[in-house]
Amino acid sequence: MINTLFLPELREMLADNNHAELSEFCVALHASRTAEFMAGLTSEEISQVFQHTDPDNRSDILSYFDRQKQVEVVSELDRNEAAKLVELLQPDDRVDLLQEVEDDVREELIALMPAEVRRDILRLDQYPEDTAGAMMTTDVTKFSETMSVREAMDALTVQAEDFETIYYLYIVDDENHLRGLVSARQLLTGMRKPTQKLGELMQTDVVAAHVMDDQEEVANKVARMDLLAIPVVDLERRLVGLITHDDVIDVVREEATEDAHRIAAVEPLDQSYLRTSVLTLSWKRGIWLTILFVCALLTAFALEQYESRLKTLYWLVPFIPLIISSGGNSGSQSATLIITALSRKHISVSDWAKVVTRELVMGLLLGVGLATLGLLASWFMINTEPRVIAPEDQPAMEISVDGGETWIANEVGGEVQSRVKQETQSLTHLAFFVVPLTLVLVVMAGTLTGSVLPLIFEKIGLDPAMMSNPFVAGIIDILGIVIYMTVAAWLVGV
Amino acid sequence: MINTLFLPELREMLADNNHAELSEFCVALHASRTAEFMAGLTSEEISQVFQHTDPDNRSDILSYFDRQKQVEVVSELDRNEAAKLVELLQPDDRVDLLQEVEDDVREELIALMPAEVRRDILRLDQYPEDTAGAMMTTDVTKFSETMSVREAMDALTVQAEDFETIYYLYIVDDENHLRGLVSARQLLTGMRKPTQKLGELMQTDVVAAHVMDDQEEVANKVARMDLLAIPVVDLERRLVGLITHDDVIDVVREEATEDAHRIAAVEPLDQSYLRTSVLTLSWKRGIWLTILFVCALLTAFALEQYESRLKTLYWLVPFIPLIISSGGNSGSQSATLIITALSRKHISVSDWAKVVTRELVMGLLLGVGLATLGLLASWFMINTEPRVIAPEDQPAMEISVDGGETWIANEVGGEVQSRVKQETQSLTHLAFFVVPLTLVLVVMAGTLTGSVLPLIFEKIGLDPAMMSNPFVAGIIDILGIVIYMTVAAWLVGV
Repeated sequence: MINTLFLPELREMLADNNHAELSEFCVALHASRTAEFMAGLTSEEISQVFQHTDPDNRSDILSYFDRQKQVEVVSELDRNEAAKLVELLQPDDRVDLLQEVEDDVREELIALMPAEVRRDILRLDQYPEDTAGAMMTTDVTKFSETMSVREAMDALTVQAEDFETIYYLYIVDDENHLRGLVSARQLLTGMRKPTQKLGELMQTDVVAAHVMDDQEEVANKVARMDLLAIPVVDLERRLVGLITHDDVIDVVREEATEDAHRIAAVEPLDQSYLRTSVLTLSWKRGIWLTILFVCALLTAFALEQYESRLKTLYWLVPFIPLIISSGGNSGSQSATLIITALSRKHISVSDWAKVVTRELVMGLLLGVGLATLGLLASWFMINTEPRVIAPEDQPAMEISVDGGETWIANEVGGEVQSRVKQETQSLTHLAFFVVPLTLVLVVMAGTLTGSVLPLIFEKIGLDPAMMSNPFVAGIIDILGIVIYMTVAAWLVGV
Repeated sequence: MINTLFLPELREMLADNNHAELSEFCVALHASRTAEFMAGLTSEEISQVFQHTDPDNRSDILSYFDRQKQVEVVSELDRNEAAKLVELLQPDDRVDLLQEVEDDVREELIALMPAEVRRDILRLDQYPEDTAGAMMTTDVTKFSETMSVREAMDALTVQAEDFETIYYLYIVDDENHLRGLVSARQLLTGMRKPTQKLGELMQTDVVAAHVMDDQEEVANKVARMDLLAIPVVDLERRLVGLITHDDVIDVVREEATEDAHRIAAVEPLDQSYLRTSVLTLSWKRGIWLTILFVCALLTAFALEQYESRLKTLYWLVPFIPLIISSGGNSGSQSATLIITALSRKHISVSDWAKVVTRELVMGLLLGVGLATLGLLASWFMINTEPRVIAPEDQPAMEISVDGGETWIANEVGGEVQSRVKQETQSLTHLAFFVVPLTLVLVVMAGTLTGSVLPLIFEKIGLDPAMMSNPFVAGIIDILGIVIYMTVAAWLVGV
C-alpha cells in the first residue's frame, strides 16, 4: 500500500529539516499508517525521516513496509544504525528480513548485534521454510508456577511494552517444559485473590504446535480454536517460541493464494506479482505449461489415430474443442471444489465414497443439461453440413458448397463405398446423438477424474492443489477424444 | 472435524448416566476439543451430555460445532433450554445460527429471550450479508474518558469473563461517539500511575470499520494493521459493534475459497461441499458450464468456417486441442495471478501498463518455449502424415495407409489441383512453422486477455474473480482458431 497523500508535505518537511513536525509525524499515527504514507519516499528519504524519531519507533514503522522496501532502507542506512534497527524487529521478522539482504551486508549486520540476538537468528534460521519453527518468534515471556497473581501482574505492568503477547502467560518448569497457561482474562479475574499462585490458576491442557509442524496445519489449528497465539514446543515439550494471530492471518492468506496459483498451474510465488521478476515468473509458469503441453500433444497423437474416421465424418471435427473443454471445465470445477474442501478440512479422504457418488450424480445432471444444448447445436450444424451421396452404381461423391466454392471428392473401392452409403443413411438417425451422448459421458468422466485425483494425491501425501489440475486436464483431454470417437463409431458405425 | 476416539467411552458414560465423569469431560478440555470429541454423537446424545454441565459451558461447546450440528442440537433440546443456550452465544454467532433454524422454531426461541437480546438479534439481522454490520458482535464494552486507570482495571477484574475482547478498551462520549482506545498493554503500563484518566492515555487515531463496509475490506484492514479487533461505527461514528481477529480469519478463508471457486467457474457455495445439496451444486456449476459451453459452440462455428481449409490440410486438425489449450492455460495463469494480486492489494488498476508489458514479455517467452516443443512435434507428425501427390497430368490423389487400410481420394477440378500441388511443395518448407508460430501468437493473446480482463472488471466495479475466467476461456478459444487458420493460410497459402 502506497499512499501519496502526504508525500509533498513530507518532502517539504525534509527540505526544511523540520525536526518538530517530522518527529510528530512519526508518532502521531498508528505505525502501519505512518508506513503507508512513507512508502512513496525513496529509501534515502526514509532514512532521513528516521533520524527524527527513536529506534523503537523506527523499527515499528519499518516492520510495516513490505520486505523489498525494508531491504532497501536497511541497505541505505549506516551499518550500526541498520543493525540496531533490525535488532529491534520481532525475531521472526528479523530473520525473514536478513534472508533477503545481500550476503555481505547480512554478515556485517549480524556481527554488530549482541551475542544473544545473534544466536537467536542462527537458531531460527535452521528451521525449514513453512514450518512452525520458521514462523515463530522466540520472544516469549515465561512465568513460573510459584509466582503469585499479583507478582505476575506487576511484571506485566513494568514490561508490557516489550512483550510479543500479553494475552497468554505461559508457565514453564525449571527445565523450560511447558506446564500450562494463564490467559490475561484469567489473570484479571484472578486479581480478586492476588496471592493465588499461577500454578493453581493455570490451564494444563495447552494446545501447542511442534517446531516442525507445517505452517498450514498450525494456522488451521489456531483458526479452528479461535486462539490469539499458540506456543511452539520441541520434541521434549520445551517452550521454544510463539506464533501470534497476525502471523496466522498472513499464513492463511499466503496458503490460499498458493492454492489458487497451483490450481491454475502456476508454481507459487515467493514474492508478490510485481516483485517477482519476469524470468522467474516465466519459469514458474513454463514448467506447468510444458507439462500441460505434453498432455495436449498426447491428445494430438490420439486424434491422429482417428484420422480416417474424422475424414469420413468431417462434421465431427468442429465439435472437438467443445467436447474437450466441457470435460475439462467440469473436471476443473470438481477438482477445485474437492481441493478447497480438503484444505479447509470440510472433507477427508475417508469421505471418498460419498464424494464420488455425489460427483457422478452431478456429472450426470450437468452432462444431460449440456447434452440438451448439444443436441440443438448438432441438429443445426449437421443440417447445414454437406451430405455424402452414394448411389449404388457410381462412386461416392461428396459435394460441398462451403464458402462459395464447389468441389467434389470421388471415392473408389467397394469397402469405402458401402461405408459411405451406411453413413448417408445413418446421418438422419443417430448422428444427432453423437455429440449429446459424448457430452454426458465426458462430463461424467470429468467430474469423476476431478474428484478422485485430489483424493488420491491427498492420500499418498502429495499436495492435491499442486498435482491435480494438470493431470485432470491431461487425462480428460485424451479420454474426451477416445469417448467421442468410440461413441461416433458406435452410433454412426464408421 | 469429527474425532471418534472417545465415542465408545462417551456412550458408555451416557448409558451409565455417570454424572461425575460426564461433567468432568465437559470442562476438562478446551471447549473446541470437547466439541471435536462430541461431534460424532447424535444430537439427542449431545443434549443428554449437556444435562451434565452448566449453561455457559454448554454454549461454549456448542459454539465450536459446525452450523448444521448446532441447528440439530438446538432443535433437539427443550425450547426453554435451547433459548437459554442460544442467548449465551456471542451475538454474531447467535444471529447466524438463528438464520439456519426453521422459521417456527426461530420465532419460539426469540420469544423466550429477554427483550434486550431480542432487540439485538433484530438489529444485527438488518445488515446485508458480507458487511461489517452482519459480521460484528454488539457485545462491546465501553469506557468513558473520565474513568481512571485503576477504575478501568477494577472493572476489568470483575467482568473480564463477560467481555468479548479485553485487549482494547474503547472510549466513548455520552452520545456513544467513538473517541479513542486504550490497549490492554497501555492499561497495564498505565498502572504505574493509576490515577491517570483514560482520556489522557487513549489513542485518538482509532482505525474503525463502518457498518456497511464489505467484510473483505474489513478483513484486509485488520490483517494489514495486525489488529486484534476493530470497532464498528455508524455514519455518525457511534460505536455499534466489534469485529474480532477470529472472525477475520474466518472471512479471509471464506473469501479465498470463494475466489478459488469463482476462478474455476463455480458460483461460491453458502455452505461446505458436503452440506450443499447436489441440486444446488449442480445449479452453481451448471450456469457457468453453460456459459462456457456457449463460448465453445462459437468455437465450433468458427471451425466450420474453415472447413475447406481443414479438409485440404487435414494435418492441421489434430493440433486444434493443443493450440486452444495452450492459449487457455496461459490465459488462466495470467488471470489467476492478476486476480489474486488484485485481491491481496499487491497491484491496482493503475498498474495496468506495467502489468500488460510484463504479461506480453512473458507471453513471448512462454510462447517461444512451447513453440520449440511444437516445432519438434509438427516435424514428427507431419513427416508421418500421408502426403498428397499431384502430378500435373492426373487428378490429385491422396493415399493414406492409416490404420492398416488403404484408400484413395481422387480430386478433380483445376482449382483444387493447383492448390493441392502448391501444398505438396510448401509442406517441405513452411508447414512445420504453422503450429510453432501459432503457439507464440496464441500464448501472447492468452496472457494479454488473461491480464487485461480482470483489470477491466475491477475498473468497472465487477468482481474480477467471478467475471474473468469464462470470458478469458471463451475469447481465447475463438481467437486461437482464428489465429491458427490465419497463420496456416499465410504460411501454406490455402
